[in-house]
Amino acid sequence: MSLYFITGNKNKFEEVKAILGDVEQLDIDLPEIQDIDAKNIIRAKLLEALNYKEGKFIVEDTSLYLDCLKSLPGPLIKWFLKTIENNGLANMAEKLGNNRAEAKTIIGYAKNRDEIEFFEGSIFGKIVAQTGVSGFGWDPIFQPDGFDKTFAEMTTEEKNNVSMRKIALEKLKEFAAKEQNQL
Amino acid sequence: MSLYFITGNKNKFEEVKAILGDVEQLDIDLPEIQDIDAKNIIRAKLLEALNYKEGKFIVEDTSLYLDCLKSLPGPLIKWFLKTIENNGLANMAEKLGNNRAEAKTIIGYAKNRDEIEFFEGSIFGKIVAQTGVSGFGWDPIFQPDGFDKTFAEMTTEEKNNVSMRKIALEKLKEFAAKEQNQL
Repeated sequence: MSLYFITGNKNKFEEVKAILGDVEQLDIDLPEIQDIDAKNIIRAKLLEALNYKEGKFIVEDTSLYLDCLKSLPGPLIKWFLKTIENNGLANMAEKLGNNRAEAKTIIGYAKNRDEIEFFEGSIFGKIVAQTGVSGFGWDPIFQPDGFDKTFAEMTTEEKNNVSMRKIALEKLKEFAAKEQNQL
Repeated sequence: MSLYFITGNKNKFEEVKAILGDVEQLDIDLPEIQDIDAKNIIRAKLLEALNYKEGKFIVEDTSLYLDCLKSLPGPLIKWFLKTIENNGLANMAEKLGNNRAEAKTIIGYAKNRDEIEFFEGSIFGKIVAQTGVSGFGWDPIFQPDGFDKTFAEMTTEEKNNVSMRKIALEKLKEFAAKEQNQL
């Protein structure tokens, strides 16, 4: 049975394929339920995908969790970016006096409706005033611990070395090996 | 064909029934999609309801929109209340130096899949330090313009006189009259 990674993002797919090997991209738009627990959002998507076609599925969520907001926005990050944008997020962290943040990827893997597993990867760091011109989403305001620059200022290679997605993917790969099982 | 107001909240239902008359309560849990435009969330619920059973349906959303967050949280308010709570919201408005807010009800009415109408009612005011012990949701931090107390400190009668839900419901009632039509 085929394994599908559900994403519209070609770069994310390439990152997953490089680590997992035998996986296909499936670019479908699944409804996102409202929740601050990314696992619930991912689970709902996986169950939709299992209804949609035969196969095994991977869904990922990469979000930013701010200490000053008790872990908001998390998976609601896109609405913050659409409204107050990176400058608003950085300003909030500064005004609230706490710039600590966690960049977290959660990967959900569904073999079937009853076997859904989650794998997490986190990078901790701080929110800084917007830097860099390029970069995806909140890359220009997140500076991982041990670095003096934001994700947006890093080369692709540098960024891949501090990838929360890679950590989560390696856990998924280990899981597959332990189960002595193809995903 | 019956008209249903979809809510689990008996008090909201009574408020709607008092204004509209011939309406039944339907307490079903419809999925909430992620959006900051309450109309999109309401529309998705109405379409689900039309799939669920025969009838005409009303869904409402009452949310708090903060100027300091460029209208967040809006329909995402419940996640803010679950995390930073009322104290966190009030602190944020203070630290960001702008306490203006809008309390807005949006009512969606679906006659069928092609005829969906929206009606809005807004009360403007400000976010203050939490007061009062009772009150629903963000009532203890919202002080409507022209009053020196929050929703939580008002009697039911006082509150009903500044009800954004009532404004929206009156518009729905007018619409029904104009159409010379039962809802």
